[in-house]
Amino acid sequence: MASTLLSARDLQFLLYEWLDTEALTRRPRYADHSKETFDGALELAERVATDHFAPHNKANDANEPHFDGERVHVIPEVRKALEVYAETGLSSIAMDASVGGDQIPRVVSSACNAYFQAANLGSSAYPSLTSGNASLLVAHGSPEQVDTFVRPMVEGRFTGTMCLSEPQAGSSLADITTRAEAADDGTYRVFGNKMWISGGDHELTENIVHLVLAKLPGGPPGVKGISLFIVPKYLVNEDGSLGERNDVVPAGLNHKMGYRGTVNALLNFGEGRYTPQGAPGAVGYLVGEPHQGLKYMFHMMDGARIGVGAGAMAVGYTGYLKSLQYARERLQGRPLGAKNPEEPQIPIIEHTDVRRMLLAQKSYVEGALALVLYCARLVDEKASAEDPETAKSAQLLLDVLTPIVKSWPSQWCLEANSLAIQVHGGYGYTREYDVEQHYRDNRLNAIHEGTHGIQALDLLGRKAVMDGGARLSLLVDTARATAERARRLGGREAEYADLLDAALSRTAETVAATWSEGDPAVALANATPYLEAVGHVVVAWLWLEQLVAAHGKEGGFYEGKRAAAAYFFRHELPRTGPQFDLVASRDRTVLDVSPEVL
Amino acid sequence: MASTLLSARDLQFLLYEWLDTEALTRRPRYADHSKETFDGALELAERVATDHFAPHNKANDANEPHFDGERVHVIPEVRKALEVYAETGLSSIAMDASVGGDQIPRVVSSACNAYFQAANLGSSAYPSLTSGNASLLVAHGSPEQVDTFVRPMVEGRFTGTMCLSEPQAGSSLADITTRAEAADDGTYRVFGNKMWISGGDHELTENIVHLVLAKLPGGPPGVKGISLFIVPKYLVNEDGSLGERNDVVPAGLNHKMGYRGTVNALLNFGEGRYTPQGAPGAVGYLVGEPHQGLKYMFHMMDGARIGVGAGAMAVGYTGYLKSLQYARERLQGRPLGAKNPEEPQIPIIEHTDVRRMLLAQKSYVEGALALVLYCARLVDEKASAEDPETAKSAQLLLDVLTPIVKSWPSQWCLEANSLAIQVHGGYGYTREYDVEQHYRDNRLNAIHEGTHGIQALDLLGRKAVMDGGARLSLLVDTARATAERARRLGGREAEYADLLDAALSRTAETVAATWSEGDPAVALANATPYLEAVGHVVVAWLWLEQLVAAHGKEGGFYEGKRAAAAYFFRHELPRTGPQFDLVASRDRTVLDVSPEVL
Repeated sequence: MASTLLSARDLQFLLYEWLDTEALTRRPRYADHSKETFDGALELAERVATDHFAPHNKANDANEPHFDGERVHVIPEVRKALEVYAETGLSSIAMDASVGGDQIPRVVSSACNAYFQAANLGSSAYPSLTSGNASLLVAHGSPEQVDTFVRPMVEGRFTGTMCLSEPQAGSSLADITTRAEAADDGTYRVFGNKMWISGGDHELTENIVHLVLAKLPGGPPGVKGISLFIVPKYLVNEDGSLGERNDVVPAGLNHKMGYRGTVNALLNFGEGRYTPQGAPGAVGYLVGEPHQGLKYMFHMMDGARIGVGAGAMAVGYTGYLKSLQYARERLQGRPLGAKNPEEPQIPIIEHTDVRRMLLAQKSYVEGALALVLYCARLVDEKASAEDPETAKSAQLLLDVLTPIVKSWPSQWCLEANSLAIQVHGGYGYTREYDVEQHYRDNRLNAIHEGTHGIQALDLLGRKAVMDGGARLSLLVDTARATAERARRLGGREAEYADLLDAALSRTAETVAATWSEGDPAVALANATPYLEAVGHVVVAWLWLEQLVAAHGKEGGFYEGKRAAAAYFFRHELPRTGPQFDLVASRDRTVLDVSPEVL
Repeated sequence: MASTLLSARDLQFLLYEWLDTEALTRRPRYADHSKETFDGALELAERVATDHFAPHNKANDANEPHFDGERVHVIPEVRKALEVYAETGLSSIAMDASVGGDQIPRVVSSACNAYFQAANLGSSAYPSLTSGNASLLVAHGSPEQVDTFVRPMVEGRFTGTMCLSEPQAGSSLADITTRAEAADDGTYRVFGNKMWISGGDHELTENIVHLVLAKLPGGPPGVKGISLFIVPKYLVNEDGSLGERNDVVPAGLNHKMGYRGTVNALLNFGEGRYTPQGAPGAVGYLVGEPHQGLKYMFHMMDGARIGVGAGAMAVGYTGYLKSLQYARERLQGRPLGAKNPEEPQIPIIEHTDVRRMLLAQKSYVEGALALVLYCARLVDEKASAEDPETAKSAQLLLDVLTPIVKSWPSQWCLEANSLAIQVHGGYGYTREYDVEQHYRDNRLNAIHEGTHGIQALDLLGRKAVMDGGARLSLLVDTARATAERARRLGGREAEYADLLDAALSRTAETVAATWSEGDPAVALANATPYLEAVGHVVVAWLWLEQLVAAHGKEGGFYEGKRAAAAYFFRHELPRTGPQFDLVASRDRTVLDVSPEVL
């Protein structure tokens, strides 16, 4: 039976028929790789995800982590799964060769990760966070820090976290109050409370490497005075063995609607439970320069935002495949107009409205997968392009696509999960099937790592306008080039090319219109509809890319691609018209409403 | 502190300033009533809902009903709440005077019910189902059946259910196989399995009155051979005391994502656990004529569909009020451009995007409340109009509005709940706040009592076209009259009147276009986008009705109405343009896609 996690056929199409991933093996950075190593990694990921992660997805949900006041308890299946993950080498495939990793392209490792996210979003968060943490330290940590903390993460012996939020400082990081004081030996002592810390405490691995934003005394106010520290749960001796317990302790766990497999903790730093090396405070190690912490953290945050979009996509994708399987098997009703109850019932996929719900899901989840892989491919381009201009362009495109790859799957693959429930009818609303959990798990993705509204401000307030709008222009030009190629193919491709071109014009013109008077409050009043419209335009572009890659190819797989692309261009892209109209009109309805009349 | 269930001020506006509910007291049917009795009922409902239903809403969710193989256990708070509900007379206010009820207008009782749905959707289902069951029997049962079963329901001693679905027959009721065999004494013996039975078993009340669809031997095939039976959990003696246990027993419970306070059971009828009166089968009593069961059941079903929409609205409404309160209290960030971290943080309601999420919710939930009350008012019109033409018109409007009042709040008040979570940020995703439960509870409403897709077929395949389209024409004409009144007011009202008029034209023209070639498969291929577009047009109409009612009135409440109406006309109604375009184009994307390429 075909996997209901992701479609391996779709991955092959996107990686090799569309993104020419094999070409990367001709670059020095990936010279040790080949299509065989890529496919080996994908097959390994599918197998480990299927055999060791998917089976405890429901158990993660039904038996969420709990805190007994001292220790955090997680069901034992998670530890076993992470052990297999490390033993099979999955924790190191994406890591730099310099730290013992296999340095596989991000576009391949993202596809591998998606299997784990589809199988078990909760358990997959531990390696995802660890990978992001390690990647930040490779970029900004000292050689000693890399040796001490990154290598054990590459080996799967330590896990990593990111500690940003505090009770009074969520979206507003300027307001963090966690402080770090220099000790005599070059280390720091950290004091404060952090919350929403995914993977914040557990006994799944030997140690936990917290990356903590804190302020040094006397630094500049606000975000300019934030520094970054490594605060391990256990101190690490010079020989790599574990030392004393550090003074970072859980104060409690959050109990969530979904995504329950991932511990989410409030952590106290330096509250005095432990006194490592005989002094108060949690021992911390400064990463890089003082006051540059937020910049470094965005190294991890940008990756985490792509990861959030990827997780949303993966959960949407598996929900699609499960509802597709259900729709093929469930018998109910008869063809329209055929009311003879003596006739056998038909599979519900024969009902047009069920096909509508499946095709909508397909257009969302395959569109989102294309978006996620495209962004990952840009990461590789940035890391491996021989021409610095090409690398720079990749970075600019990635900048403008980051709020979209984070937000669009979080919105539309959640909608896909809702449709997956709807295809199942009442059964889908019960915990006997998987789709209700997917829907609950997926709802977090529009919130964490920068809310939907924050992404909207990032796009319309920063990425679309900085450097004279260079990033958005590059995006529009890149998509126009696709339209040009598609137009030359004629037929349906040319028809969609015209639709895309028109939408791209609106994408650019709307920025000019909304900023025309220069008042940011007015310009940004409708940032969210703008984000949502541009998300649809970008995904339409990537559907056209897929159509071009599928051009002239025959068979059910390609027919399915053409049907989903048709759905997206006919049913979805037109949604953007009223959204662009609204934003371009500088509508003040929301801006002007007085809080007291609500 | 203001209630966070519903806005009493909004109810006063809608009932008295808009719908002129007081005028009903001049009709014979409601002659015993006055504004004072109406307001008394509303205040009672708010108080009982607040004091006895809201407090155990979370407990219902955390401790769902369970079945020990013999009995169904429900937390004791539910029984106590239902006792207070009966003792205070709430179980009888809406019932006919002929059966001991207070015969209050439906528009008032719907508002009362909404308090309970907002407070505790799970517990509110027991009285809602009971009321619908009793109403069916008042209309179609024999006097003896009314005496035996309805009066105890009016008194709150018995509860009622509706038993339609079976494992192989959900949306397709033609396929039910439960059968009823005539016994010698005029009663029947029922055999079969029913599923998805809300309130199907419990010990909350003395007895449970099941209304069961079953087939008599030799009847016509399909839905034309369905009859309706009363099957009580316990037989009732002639003196009204309880007799033997009937052979209807739970086979298990469904474990749901939300709405957990309502028992949802699989029931076996006549499987042999009990042999009432010494013979096999569950004892049943035929309601009305044989083979007319589905018609009778639609008496309850149509009411249940309005009730589903009302429940969706109420849960959306309370989520809105809770997120509004949170947004006023939660401090985070600073005004746009003011980055000085020395300044105090501001309430998040000061952020434009948060106001957008609140205003969107307000436009959805207050629009849905207007829709629910308008439909309830039509029920009263039908029951009390002195002129038969007026009563008939009310029925025709109600026919065409039923799929909309069922589906629109189920879609958009769920979206409101999602926005309520988003306003709360990460906190909203935790079970410490209420809104995540509202979101889970509300997701059922697009599924039960006829799925979203079934409502779409009902609208575009039946209600919009039957009798030469009389119902849809009446709806369009009625809304046009509102536009005409609004146009005469000038200003913003006139502007919206034009928008509404245009949308009404499209509502009618799109039906003609999609049915232009007469092939139902093509005409109905895009029934769901049509349903969704018309829902938005109807709610826009009711926002214009509210604007007219608020015209010339000053103060924050009316300003809030104007802001929400503006939001709906500017941000929401334009969504319908692409939907009507799609349906009118007879788009075949979904119809033509072959199942095997999905």
